[in-house]
Amino acid sequence: MKVALAQLNYHIGNFEENREKILRAIRQAAAQGADLVVFAELAVCGYPPRDFLEWDEFIDHCERSVELIAAECRGIAAILGAPSRNPNPKGKKLYNSAYLLKDGAVVTRVDKSLLPTYDVFDEYRYFEHNRDYSVIEFGGHRIALTICEDLWNSDEDPLYVTSPMDELVRQQPSLMINIAASPFDYAHREARIKVLQANCRKYGLPLLYVNHTGSQTELIFDGGSLALDRRGRILGEMHYFREDLQVFETGPAEAAVAPEAPGPVEVAGTTEPGKVAGGTEASYASCIADQAIGRIHQALLTGIRDYFHKSGFDKAILGMSGGIDSALVLALTCEALGEENVLAVLMPSEFSSDHSVRDSVEMVRLLGCKHEIISIRDIYDSFLKTLKPQFGDLPFGLAEENLQARARGTLLMALSNKFGYILLNTSNKSENAVGYGTLYGDMCGGLSVIGDLYKTQVFALARYLNRSRERIPQQIITKTPSAELRPGQKDSDSLPDYALLDQVLFQYIELKKTTEEIVKSGFEADLVRKILRMVNLSEYKRYQVPPILRVSPKAFGMGRRIPIVGKYLS
Amino acid sequence: MKVALAQLNYHIGNFEENREKILRAIRQAAAQGADLVVFAELAVCGYPPRDFLEWDEFIDHCERSVELIAAECRGIAAILGAPSRNPNPKGKKLYNSAYLLKDGAVVTRVDKSLLPTYDVFDEYRYFEHNRDYSVIEFGGHRIALTICEDLWNSDEDPLYVTSPMDELVRQQPSLMINIAASPFDYAHREARIKVLQANCRKYGLPLLYVNHTGSQTELIFDGGSLALDRRGRILGEMHYFREDLQVFETGPAEAAVAPEAPGPVEVAGTTEPGKVAGGTEASYASCIADQAIGRIHQALLTGIRDYFHKSGFDKAILGMSGGIDSALVLALTCEALGEENVLAVLMPSEFSSDHSVRDSVEMVRLLGCKHEIISIRDIYDSFLKTLKPQFGDLPFGLAEENLQARARGTLLMALSNKFGYILLNTSNKSENAVGYGTLYGDMCGGLSVIGDLYKTQVFALARYLNRSRERIPQQIITKTPSAELRPGQKDSDSLPDYALLDQVLFQYIELKKTTEEIVKSGFEADLVRKILRMVNLSEYKRYQVPPILRVSPKAFGMGRRIPIVGKYLS
Repeated sequence: MKVALAQLNYHIGNFEENREKILRAIRQAAAQGADLVVFAELAVCGYPPRDFLEWDEFIDHCERSVELIAAECRGIAAILGAPSRNPNPKGKKLYNSAYLLKDGAVVTRVDKSLLPTYDVFDEYRYFEHNRDYSVIEFGGHRIALTICEDLWNSDEDPLYVTSPMDELVRQQPSLMINIAASPFDYAHREARIKVLQANCRKYGLPLLYVNHTGSQTELIFDGGSLALDRRGRILGEMHYFREDLQVFETGPAEAAVAPEAPGPVEVAGTTEPGKVAGGTEASYASCIADQAIGRIHQALLTGIRDYFHKSGFDKAILGMSGGIDSALVLALTCEALGEENVLAVLMPSEFSSDHSVRDSVEMVRLLGCKHEIISIRDIYDSFLKTLKPQFGDLPFGLAEENLQARARGTLLMALSNKFGYILLNTSNKSENAVGYGTLYGDMCGGLSVIGDLYKTQVFALARYLNRSRERIPQQIITKTPSAELRPGQKDSDSLPDYALLDQVLFQYIELKKTTEEIVKSGFEADLVRKILRMVNLSEYKRYQVPPILRVSPKAFGMGRRIPIVGKYLS
Repeated sequence: MKVALAQLNYHIGNFEENREKILRAIRQAAAQGADLVVFAELAVCGYPPRDFLEWDEFIDHCERSVELIAAECRGIAAILGAPSRNPNPKGKKLYNSAYLLKDGAVVTRVDKSLLPTYDVFDEYRYFEHNRDYSVIEFGGHRIALTICEDLWNSDEDPLYVTSPMDELVRQQPSLMINIAASPFDYAHREARIKVLQANCRKYGLPLLYVNHTGSQTELIFDGGSLALDRRGRILGEMHYFREDLQVFETGPAEAAVAPEAPGPVEVAGTTEPGKVAGGTEASYASCIADQAIGRIHQALLTGIRDYFHKSGFDKAILGMSGGIDSALVLALTCEALGEENVLAVLMPSEFSSDHSVRDSVEMVRLLGCKHEIISIRDIYDSFLKTLKPQFGDLPFGLAEENLQARARGTLLMALSNKFGYILLNTSNKSENAVGYGTLYGDMCGGLSVIGDLYKTQVFALARYLNRSRERIPQQIITKTPSAELRPGQKDSDSLPDYALLDQVLFQYIELKKTTEEIVKSGFEADLVRKILRMVNLSEYKRYQVPPILRVSPKAFGMGRRIPIVGKYLS
């Protein structure tokens, strides 16, 4: 049996476009002689559709798409992810399903059993668990068809009390197929391969695995669909961060899956194909390693591109301070959208150092994007003059610092409104974590590009971008970080050294260590308590942050839900 | 057996304060001769603790609280809500539990079976389902102890495949106790009473029910704890929107629960005690009815007060435009915090009508709060002058309108930063729904007070506040709504009439009707499509809105999760 894996970039709710893509892939697979083409989880509507699933109209559209696609399945069958209505009056109204389409009609349906409801996932919000297990017969195979999480109930730390494959294996399947929507993080490739290989070995079965590619606002899907043999050896690893369709020959039921042609393995900075990194446990060291940084680079390009294209915009604007954060976002945006679509705005104040403008101008020349220089001096003065009756002779402080940031945010939004740019946010994860930023000022923007990168990762990615040619002037990378909102200000006036801060933050945010554990790992107790207090007290700011491209296993945003008005470690 | 119900206002993560409250209530209940005192769901940590539950340290604190409280249970027993660790390696790591404490120790524990995971609830994110059912014996009773949602699996539209009481009733219980965290909405009292009564009647058992009171950022708990007899008759209905402790006599196992003294029933604008409104189905008419508006009034006061007190702040600032939204928020805030703690800022521009300032000044005099008048003219001019090289001679448009709103937002934030006020947001639900507001302008603020009130509800609440004395000048209520950002502007230039708009929005947002259904209910198809398109295209704005006090069954915020970059009805 020849099976095509179709790894596509869907657009949530855009039924027509998704359907067209799927139909094109069916024709392409048929042309390559495939008997079966496999699409990803919830392919008809895109993933994650979230509360759109609660509208009957949305589900009607999904059902209609399944029917229209089934009608085109002649001479080739398809496995297709879509929601389906639960016919039982008890339980949630929907299932997260995989349809088998053949001879112009729906032949059967398999429903997802394990519903990820943690981090960025909310599936039990919408779907009922399947409790009924049947292999499906096709092309001489008995296929154990599962959906994403169904294969992820690790034996080491099982999150669920049942494992669908433990049930399905009793029915003597000859092949596993898993359709997924498995979002990217810098360590996810190894985690994914390890889990899938463990399934192959445990059940002695080959596996075909299809993922999404492309991004949906903050969630980035990296593709990397796989064909594994019954020993878990990688026979094919599909493209990362782009659409791909490949055909694999499964052979007779008792044989392994074989690739039609050697599959490409192109993960930037990764180990060799098939060689899987030892553990998948996250560590601070791994998040700044070259491998992670190279993948993050690819992921952010995907995230920026799809955010603009799927929103129907093509032009970006951002404020450039002369610091490394905005420089990095500028370089990434020019690479993602083309420098002709990017406007960098330099907005010096009386506190800006000479090198800020000079370095920024040098950088926009290096990149070839447009720029404007707009002084905020008059605006800032007019705010101070207007507020003089209230502020009187009170000393310069946080209010005046924030005024400058908000004058800049307002200028950027004015240009965005006037000329149809989307404003990109340039805050990093360290700042977001401790609340070192101005709401409605530098925290403005439609999308946060590097909000899931700690400051030390920002430096690492900047150096990575410069590896072949200088895109970010060296002096921007080496200068001392400063917000330049008061004379001689440095980030280190308010914050611990970033190398230290980021390690503490990583242990608290990514690893969820306790105060005591962090202290024991070698940090001063008062410092740790101060940092955790800053994190927990700035939840109110993070609530209003733009969506953040997620590249780590734990990003701020929908995957991290902390009470705003609480009193805990604060 | 005498049972005290302790309805308290907890603070998330504030273990010490919560524990002190609980211990005080235990002493008070003991002094009143109670054999047992019952506290609400997750009382030790407050509800909802969200991802704090993922830290071992947080759970350690919960366990320590349970131990310390158990130690004080001598001569009186307690039922107490707290998370507990799942001893089984399979499944989620926690249970949502009710502990029975007696003779200085934990006697037993009951775990929650049905885990609400919809709207604002995320319980399956953290907790494993209980599958093991046992009544607990205490004071001669066999108690069927359940936790909130466990009693909510309606026979009409069951969301779960099992019902814990169907299992427990086989063990011949004589009394039901339910500990809850059941948030307010304007129709929730009737829904709650109806569901609880249905349980009494179905199982022929009396019921004691304890809820939270007070608010946790956006979620408001209204109290209203209940004692019902086996026929579902209300024997006691505790205070709404404040702490309360009442003792009920359960008598022998075969008798009904009897109140120690007649319990108060004080729901503003409600039907008589025990009289339950017919249906609980939401309708647009019900959301602007006096009953709903009266309750919303109480809820918003609670929401404002607790947001400030639990954040450790006491002073509020807000911008006053002369329109009804800011006027209503001002009146509510003065009532909640005291007029001496409120600063109203009038920020006229060249487009402000004379009556805007006049009406606002009249209102602040009526209320007795402080005010400032700060013209934005110079600031606006300096923005335009600064942007002249970029804007050139392009006609006045949205960019210029937004500039004014952002100048105001920046002024308010400057005063907030300088003097320690929290800025209150004054956007309403109709504006939020269609994106009629300026990000980083009038959409600023730490808390959105009326963001869950449609414009027509804003009018109704304003009239309601004026029922005994004029707090909002009549002309503010009767004037034509306008953002006053360009000459002669009216809301109706961009938006349908609010009476029409709100009805369409209600059907789409609250009732999740399809386009076709809304059109069939009597609205023009093009208009409906235009409105739904506006709603779906403005998701990116709502993502950055402050937390909104939730008073309806479907508020924007954590209870409504829609993709930002989608393409659906848009």
